[in-house]
Amino acid sequence: MSEPIAFLGNLDPDEEADFLAALGAALPEETIRPFRTLTPDERATVRIAIVANPDPAEVALLPNLAWIQSLWAGVERLVRDLGPGTAPIVRLIDPELARTMAEAVLAWTYYLQRDMPAYRRQQETATWRQLAYRPPGEVRVGLLGLGALGSAAAARLVQAGFRVAAWTRAPKPVPAEVTAHSGPEGLPDLLAASDIAVCLLPLTEETRGLLDAGRFAAMRPGAALINFGRGAIVDTDALVAALDAGRISHAVLDVFSVEPLPPDSRLWRHPGVTVLPHISGPTTPGSAAAVVAGNVRAYRATGRIPAAVDVARGY
Amino acid sequence: MSEPIAFLGNLDPDEEADFLAALGAALPEETIRPFRTLTPDERATVRIAIVANPDPAEVALLPNLAWIQSLWAGVERLVRDLGPGTAPIVRLIDPELARTMAEAVLAWTYYLQRDMPAYRRQQETATWRQLAYRPPGEVRVGLLGLGALGSAAAARLVQAGFRVAAWTRAPKPVPAEVTAHSGPEGLPDLLAASDIAVCLLPLTEETRGLLDAGRFAAMRPGAALINFGRGAIVDTDALVAALDAGRISHAVLDVFSVEPLPPDSRLWRHPGVTVLPHISGPTTPGSAAAVVAGNVRAYRATGRIPAAVDVARGY
Ligand SMILES: NC(=O)c1ccc[n+]([C@@H]2O[C@H](COP(=O)([O-])OP(=O)(O)OC[C@H]3O[C@@H](n4cnc5c(N)ncnc54)[C@H](OP(=O)(O)O)[C@@H]3O)[C@@H](O)[C@H]2O)c1
Ligand SMILES: NC(=O)c1ccc[n+]([C@@H]2O[C@H](COP(=O)([O-])OP(=O)(O)OC[C@H]3O[C@@H](n4cnc5c(N)ncnc54)[C@H](OP(=O)(O)O)[C@@H]3O)[C@@H](O)[C@H]2O)c1
Repeated sequence: MSEPIAFLGNLDPDEEADFLAALGAALPEETIRPFRTLTPDERATVRIAIVANPDPAEVALLPNLAWIQSLWAGVERLVRDLGPGTAPIVRLIDPELARTMAEAVLAWTYYLQRDMPAYRRQQETATWRQLAYRPPGEVRVGLLGLGALGSAAAARLVQAGFRVAAWTRAPKPVPAEVTAHSGPEGLPDLLAASDIAVCLLPLTEETRGLLDAGRFAAMRPGAALINFGRGAIVDTDALVAALDAGRISHAVLDVFSVEPLPPDSRLWRHPGVTVLPHISGPTTPGSAAAVVAGNVRAYRATGRIPAAVDVARGY
Repeated sequence: MSEPIAFLGNLDPDEEADFLAALGAALPEETIRPFRTLTPDERATVRIAIVANPDPAEVALLPNLAWIQSLWAGVERLVRDLGPGTAPIVRLIDPELARTMAEAVLAWTYYLQRDMPAYRRQQETATWRQLAYRPPGEVRVGLLGLGALGSAAAARLVQAGFRVAAWTRAPKPVPAEVTAHSGPEGLPDLLAASDIAVCLLPLTEETRGLLDAGRFAAMRPGAALINFGRGAIVDTDALVAALDAGRISHAVLDVFSVEPLPPDSRLWRHPGVTVLPHISGPTTPGSAAAVVAGNVRAYRATGRIPAAVDVARGY
């Protein structure tokens, strides 16, 4: 019998119960205990913590941690809260999340390509007007970020016939149908060649505030933005100015610097903005638990820690 | 040099010019002449008419017509206006139209599956609430009609992971992933098993007013409707009553009994209705002309008339 695995979540009780049930079912051979139920002696034995928005002070009370499994794909808060001396952080790389997010990218790309916001506005004034149809082969989608999620999104977009380009930090091999850009000098090229820009970047020191007035000016007149990465990557004032100036035709925003988006935010009321409550890529307890179980079992069998986040790089 | 082909359109001048240019480019060996430019002697020689909302009185002035090529896929008006004694009517079966319509079915299925109307309503009241995500594998889409357009839509929906069923007039072979229903007795089964019903039926004596109060009562509580077929297939009063009673959660309507939809129609203002101005499957002159050219050349080479509409059946 191994030592217990600690669960540190700052979730609502139903959500915590769902995750604990799913983890228990996926790892029947392990004992997974909420942090608050562990005695100080037990805490000292813990090697693995499974976390979802944990209290950093509680993580610090686990002195012998070998690694930390995040239940989220985005770990900027963990990296910031736990700091450079922390145990290795393993983020969630869940094929089901990638599928769901790729589906969201395709769904909201269609939303823009098929002019759903414009037809919605026409409906408000009982206006019957057919807008020019643009086939996917004439619509260029630029992905900012081509990691686990961006790669899945690229595949779905290519399959649907869109023209796809992508931007990454370092050059990397991409499928033949995808045009590759990388590094700071690659971003203006991507933006100048995209009718729809889709952000699937992690939030890091380099990406915070990345999409600012200069970047919006580099976009094609009338291009649209989808942000499914993190809210703080976009400079909201610059986005609103670009929308008001008609440079950007529409923004679909699923992530915000402060969530829930405060009721007095002007984004709620802007006609050029579609606000989504962080639903593009939901983590489902069942599929997340299966991924975590695979990581835990590999560690128990080999003693090797799963691939961890580069804390210096921030993702 | 063959006799001229007559073009009979009731289109706006730009649209007529686009179609004539595309037809001319696709059939350089033919002379395609607007009806109004033909002398009575020339009219008597015409064997082929290419039509888009033609004036039936003009068609009657072509006494030696062998067949009529429609530029539209839906021919209920032609069939009604020209009547039983007419020359064979060949409707447009355009793979590019099938692709565009299948894309529209997938796009507006995502619109409903990903709860875009509900998130839109939440945005109006600055409400941040995550709705339960339903993966495509748990969403049953029922297609009413599985002809040229319905079959293409079924393939796209299956590819995207939706559960697909279809309803046709006569039993017919369907792909393994599609559950087949047919005949009047098959419709209640299809409706009872669909979360989203998609109408891709032609308008005929049998389908006029088909979706009435009884059919809406047979649908699953909270199911949604997409009508991309013809407006008169849906009983609008019954639909509004079903929406108001909450039986039907949402309707996406692209076609209406009267088009343009009159500004005073309550459909424009109903919160449960998305009004589209007949844009789901646009006919593009280039691809339509290529299909027409194929039909004309086959006829010139063999003397055989392309497969025509069954006027008695109505489609
Ligand atoms: N809205 C939601 O519901 C939701 C759900 C899950 C995740 N997310 C967000 O999505 C993000 C991406 O997830 P993922 O799993 O795809 O991450 P990932 O596998 O780590 O991929 C990140 C991608 O971003 C690129 N990148 C990072 N920093 C960059 C920079 N400075 N310049 C250019 N490119 C840069 C990386 O480039 P390289 O390829 O060169 O490394 C990589 O392609 C997460 O961090 C999270 O914030 C949102
Ligand atoms: N909104 C738009 O932009 C747009 C664009 C193009 C077309 N349309 C509409 O879409 C319609 C369908 O086009 P299509 O090319 O797919 O037509 P199609 O190939 O003739 O197919 C019609 C389908 O409807 C079925 N059907 C007809 N009457 C029926 C009945 N009484 N009961 C059950 N099923 C019945 C047929 O059953 P069987 O297989 O047994 O024959 C067939 O599967 C057109 O007629 C047109 O009105 C709309």
